[in-house]
Amino acid sequence: MGFDNVVHRLYLIFLAWILFTLHFRSASGERSTYIIHMDKSLMPKAFATHHHWYASTVDSLMTAASTASNGVQSTPKLIYTYDHVLHGFCAVLSKGELEKLRKSTAGFVSAYSDRTVTLDTTHTIEFLKLNQISGLWPASDFGKDVIVGVIDTGVWPESASFKDDGMTQIPARWKGTCEEGQEFNSSMCNRKLIGARYFNKGVIAANPGVNLTMNSARDTQGHGTHTSSTAAGNYVEGASYFGYAKGTARGVAPGARVAMYKVVWDEGRYASDVLAGMDQAVADGVDVISISMGFDLVPLYKDPIAIASFAAMEKGVLVSSSAGNEGPSLGTLHNGIPWVLTVAAGTIDRSFAGTLALGNGLTITGWTMFPASALVQDLPLVYNKTLSACNSSALLSGAPYGVIICKDVGFISDQLDQIAASKVGAAIIISDHPVLFELGVVPWPVVVISPKYAKAVIDYAKTAHKPTATMKFQQTLQHTKPAPAVALYTSRGPSRSYPGILKPDVMAPGSLVLASWIPNSEAAIIGSLSLSSDYNMVSGTSMACPHASGVAALLRGAHPEWSVAAIRSAIVTTANPYDNTFNNIRDNGLSFEIASPLAMGAGQIDPNRALDPGLIYDATPQDYVNLLCSMNFTTKQILTITRSNTYTCSNPSPDLNYPSFIALYNNKSTAFVQKFQRTVTNVGDGAASYKAIVTAPKGSKVMVSPATLAFEYKYEKLSYTLTIEYKSDKDGKVSFGSLTWIEDDGKHTVRSPIVVSEVVTPW
Amino acid sequence: MGFDNVVHRLYLIFLAWILFTLHFRSASGERSTYIIHMDKSLMPKAFATHHHWYASTVDSLMTAASTASNGVQSTPKLIYTYDHVLHGFCAVLSKGELEKLRKSTAGFVSAYSDRTVTLDTTHTIEFLKLNQISGLWPASDFGKDVIVGVIDTGVWPESASFKDDGMTQIPARWKGTCEEGQEFNSSMCNRKLIGARYFNKGVIAANPGVNLTMNSARDTQGHGTHTSSTAAGNYVEGASYFGYAKGTARGVAPGARVAMYKVVWDEGRYASDVLAGMDQAVADGVDVISISMGFDLVPLYKDPIAIASFAAMEKGVLVSSSAGNEGPSLGTLHNGIPWVLTVAAGTIDRSFAGTLALGNGLTITGWTMFPASALVQDLPLVYNKTLSACNSSALLSGAPYGVIICKDVGFISDQLDQIAASKVGAAIIISDHPVLFELGVVPWPVVVISPKYAKAVIDYAKTAHKPTATMKFQQTLQHTKPAPAVALYTSRGPSRSYPGILKPDVMAPGSLVLASWIPNSEAAIIGSLSLSSDYNMVSGTSMACPHASGVAALLRGAHPEWSVAAIRSAIVTTANPYDNTFNNIRDNGLSFEIASPLAMGAGQIDPNRALDPGLIYDATPQDYVNLLCSMNFTTKQILTITRSNTYTCSNPSPDLNYPSFIALYNNKSTAFVQKFQRTVTNVGDGAASYKAIVTAPKGSKVMVSPATLAFEYKYEKLSYTLTIEYKSDKDGKVSFGSLTWIEDDGKHTVRSPIVVSEVVTPW
Repeated sequence: MGFDNVVHRLYLIFLAWILFTLHFRSASGERSTYIIHMDKSLMPKAFATHHHWYASTVDSLMTAASTASNGVQSTPKLIYTYDHVLHGFCAVLSKGELEKLRKSTAGFVSAYSDRTVTLDTTHTIEFLKLNQISGLWPASDFGKDVIVGVIDTGVWPESASFKDDGMTQIPARWKGTCEEGQEFNSSMCNRKLIGARYFNKGVIAANPGVNLTMNSARDTQGHGTHTSSTAAGNYVEGASYFGYAKGTARGVAPGARVAMYKVVWDEGRYASDVLAGMDQAVADGVDVISISMGFDLVPLYKDPIAIASFAAMEKGVLVSSSAGNEGPSLGTLHNGIPWVLTVAAGTIDRSFAGTLALGNGLTITGWTMFPASALVQDLPLVYNKTLSACNSSALLSGAPYGVIICKDVGFISDQLDQIAASKVGAAIIISDHPVLFELGVVPWPVVVISPKYAKAVIDYAKTAHKPTATMKFQQTLQHTKPAPAVALYTSRGPSRSYPGILKPDVMAPGSLVLASWIPNSEAAIIGSLSLSSDYNMVSGTSMACPHASGVAALLRGAHPEWSVAAIRSAIVTTANPYDNTFNNIRDNGLSFEIASPLAMGAGQIDPNRALDPGLIYDATPQDYVNLLCSMNFTTKQILTITRSNTYTCSNPSPDLNYPSFIALYNNKSTAFVQKFQRTVTNVGDGAASYKAIVTAPKGSKVMVSPATLAFEYKYEKLSYTLTIEYKSDKDGKVSFGSLTWIEDDGKHTVRSPIVVSEVVTPW
Repeated sequence: MGFDNVVHRLYLIFLAWILFTLHFRSASGERSTYIIHMDKSLMPKAFATHHHWYASTVDSLMTAASTASNGVQSTPKLIYTYDHVLHGFCAVLSKGELEKLRKSTAGFVSAYSDRTVTLDTTHTIEFLKLNQISGLWPASDFGKDVIVGVIDTGVWPESASFKDDGMTQIPARWKGTCEEGQEFNSSMCNRKLIGARYFNKGVIAANPGVNLTMNSARDTQGHGTHTSSTAAGNYVEGASYFGYAKGTARGVAPGARVAMYKVVWDEGRYASDVLAGMDQAVADGVDVISISMGFDLVPLYKDPIAIASFAAMEKGVLVSSSAGNEGPSLGTLHNGIPWVLTVAAGTIDRSFAGTLALGNGLTITGWTMFPASALVQDLPLVYNKTLSACNSSALLSGAPYGVIICKDVGFISDQLDQIAASKVGAAIIISDHPVLFELGVVPWPVVVISPKYAKAVIDYAKTAHKPTATMKFQQTLQHTKPAPAVALYTSRGPSRSYPGILKPDVMAPGSLVLASWIPNSEAAIIGSLSLSSDYNMVSGTSMACPHASGVAALLRGAHPEWSVAAIRSAIVTTANPYDNTFNNIRDNGLSFEIASPLAMGAGQIDPNRALDPGLIYDATPQDYVNLLCSMNFTTKQILTITRSNTYTCSNPSPDLNYPSFIALYNNKSTAFVQKFQRTVTNVGDGAASYKAIVTAPKGSKVMVSPATLAFEYKYEKLSYTLTIEYKSDKDGKVSFGSLTWIEDDGKHTVRSPIVVSEVVTPW
């Protein structure tokens, strides 16, 4: 499990370490933490509450307790009980104790080891066309009284984004609290940040005797402060990342409330804590859960987010999650859960620029994020073939003082480090590698220019008498084109959790998103000096997710009657597959080819259109159970997710009423036919007639029947079938197209992506 | 001559070089530049204009021309003609040619070598209590339609301070232009920056063949951009110096217009160019001239500013000038000219802070201006007696990584440089030396703390197990006390130009003033990196002067009928000798003793009180001539200043009707009596009665007769005498007191400082 955020390389190192240690921990015979799902309907009447039952169950193992070899944990120990998103508990047990529990406990459903999570990471408001005048903001009153629960690393309550200027009274239905803790007291919550809790029992159980660096809901990593302010931060004027992206920061739902559930610790990230946080969020009464992290390599019935979000969905709480940052390979996505919204990351129509002006008058706009107004004025411009690799600070230190020209040798991060260590005056790096523009650390005055200018710059440096260069930093370009593009790093479908549903659902802005940060961590570097910032520019699906969470909060405010599936359907069918040049969105991870829905879902989220989608693909909890029943799961595995025997498996169906289509073939199949059944609900104003327009994936034929849908009244449901006839495409690529229901008067267009892809192996 | 600005050490080095080269140039037999004053009344009728006359005069020397040894300048050359602030011209002549001109030219008055000038640098608005609601701002309509001519290094027209948002049409009387030049076109002026001209003939004449780095009114030094935006810049939100002093920048007279006259060049600063700029400013119709520079070591009749400002004064144009930065020694002041306003520099009630938090909980607010949000979080705190001198980067580089404690060894600038070069994590310097707080360059994360905290910090570092320190930068403290104080560097009276008039007149904010800057020069340093800034914090009487110029502009707007002497009198008699602790203003250059009027004049400028001074000490041009006639000047020396024979010397008087008093004794005198005659004009609303309150200087007796003044109507003039009986004070110090005329109803108090001082040798 891991955060879905790519900027902080430390996270990735940390994650590798976690996976490494996990591996070794599993192999030992000592006690470890398990999450046990129980069938609450089987609770003996002797117990007053589930808590008593679970405690008694763990107590019953006591007699069997023996001192472990290291003596640290001498008895089995109950650390959490869960009751809202799952029925069950978390306990520290030996393998033997777990086995005893599994065999001898009535009501035992399933158990699995606690595991670690991966974390995924503001002009984005304008980019998403949210505005005061029309559309989703005014329609939802800016998300007023909608509560967004953020499951993350905690929050920096003093951030200006969490001031409650202009916020009305907290809704009476709110049951959450502002939990006291280290450097966190209950007065730190307000009408914006209405709740803050922390869940540390899992991390403590996994690391006995651990001393938590910050035992409270206070954020020590910045991630949770960033995601929560992105979803629902208040207005903050004059925010910037060291002069870049200067402007008014605010969340997607600036009127919504934030409740933080800290479940991720510097000392580890555990499923048990994530479950506890989500359990509490649902109990507290949040309307939307934003969770920018995911569990990799687990089936749905062992995925804490899948489990917890099922219960949330039942209660009408939409869970918005991040797809992960393991792209661009296919099948890398996590959170591919049929009942959550899975969000991919895209770029923004903004770039951070440095201007390079040569002594001969040539001026080039390049890319930079050097975090200060470096004065590079008429310095000598230096080109030397040996130096130009710029991969040795020793060599660079011997260069004449000036602006060094560096060629692209494929390791820009290393070049930046060497340049900074060498203390050259400044440098020009020639590259158009897209990764660079999604990372932010530029530790020395460097401007990256496109290879198309290389010749002019090098020629001038080689031939002029005294070539000079001047640079300006801290420039922000707006409305850059094309945008959005699919981010290189965003994890791709198909979802190994259930490949038969197209994931991700949509794409939202994720690259270089400006939002609140913790002021006591490194946000930039100059040479050997670390700098801090109240606002940071971070990239990742972690940053895309809270954009979607904010939109979901606004839709919840505008349409309180909609189901979770309805909100997601509105977001998906109104998403935009085109960029700001009116061409298909491109994929930065795929040589700028047209992006497939496996990278971006239906396209870029379009909040104002989502307000009024025309038609909705709805789904009930039983619909999801029907899907689960079609999968190769045992009853207990299904019960682990559903918690309740009131659902039946009498109508198993692999074909959920989902607003998108994916047909899978395996290597050997040369051709196949797949038929999908869909029912749409008219949420327009009254009678309406729609016509199907299909763009078939390459190598396929797509039929829709009926091809027109004539609704007579609002909320009327009509069904259709979509059939894909596929003949193996010789190049074996993913092919894709779409079905669009267009209203006769053109008012509503309801678009669903269609994908034909090779099957992936489920986890 | 030199700028009155202390931050940029380069200026001082440059100045020393100029003086050095001047010395050698004078000694050579080659041609050099002379300014020749002429009696225009003697112009032969054959000449259509003064220009023809002067050109013909220079032409007449042609026949005598011989090629100079270096061949660069082969003929005498006319470079400027002047007609507004002086009658005469500037020409490049040999000594022989000058001698011929002196002897054979009817109308020749005087001549002197061209010489070089010395330059002198926004919460100051609040500090001066200017506000939208009451007082001088609304009374003057914010200086609307008043034109401030700034004689300086040019201007950066793109600065946000010179945007003309909210400015009305340019007054029709304006005759100036926006002169084209290098990187400067006429469209760069607007309704705020209404004129920009440049005067380069003097610098070119003195440096034949010179290639001016910026041959236009564009500023290459920042000085002129800073002074002009301080006097009359428009409102700019979000201005700061790297996060310090963040707020809305605006000039003292935000509604006034700016006209820039560039007379100072990277290649030199010449009297001929200063004269040309002032000549043109008066011709163009400016209302106030702000000139933050001065000529040292010259008598009034050879001081270009004295000469040009006399004509300006005749035309009602107040000239506001800087006292210089040669303090704290007495007699160092320049611009001690009886008909100009001479401005000293004081500190501001603001400080730039860094917080030092030790691991044991102790938090200390120190001083810093490190220009970035350095992240110094829980670093090891290091105290080592040898290291603590912090004067060797080699030694410091070997220190353990952390926060190094440095003791005050008297050379903080050097310590800062060594610390930056050593790349230690951060440093604490223990010092309360006041100079530091008037300089701005902190090139590495350093917080300066008061010696009173030294023991606690060192003890903790020595005794704690793992001592740590955390630092925060970019903090601004407002309303610090005591403030203002006299700045260490501000030049002190008595004026060697004419010691009999108390100079400086008043003090204005001069230390660490935030105003516009040029973006292509160094405004801060981090390690070896130079940074630029659109706003800079600079110190000097150069920064005090435009504050007074702005106030004069506001008074000109509020009282268009007032003479230059009336405006100055209002500023002087309402100035505040007390700081914000209600104690006497202290002198940072004199061990924090009570400041004497030789350091600060009447005290801190108080714009709102100056609006309504009650009584005015007026003076006419003839009054100044009477003063000149009392000095040991020849008729031609006087004519050099007055330009006109219409003035008479029939009433010579050393006693000008000035709003302050200075009595001078020489070393040998044991006692003396000095009597002053004064006439005050009632500018209050009607009948008013005033009573004299005297605080006699130590060792003196002061008598005022009459001791009451009863005015019956507005503009009535009444006279009084003030007599100082001095008995030598044994310690030979400057002693001082005051005369205050207090209106019976207490509405107006009209205060004049009184000084008894040892005489200084005039230049």
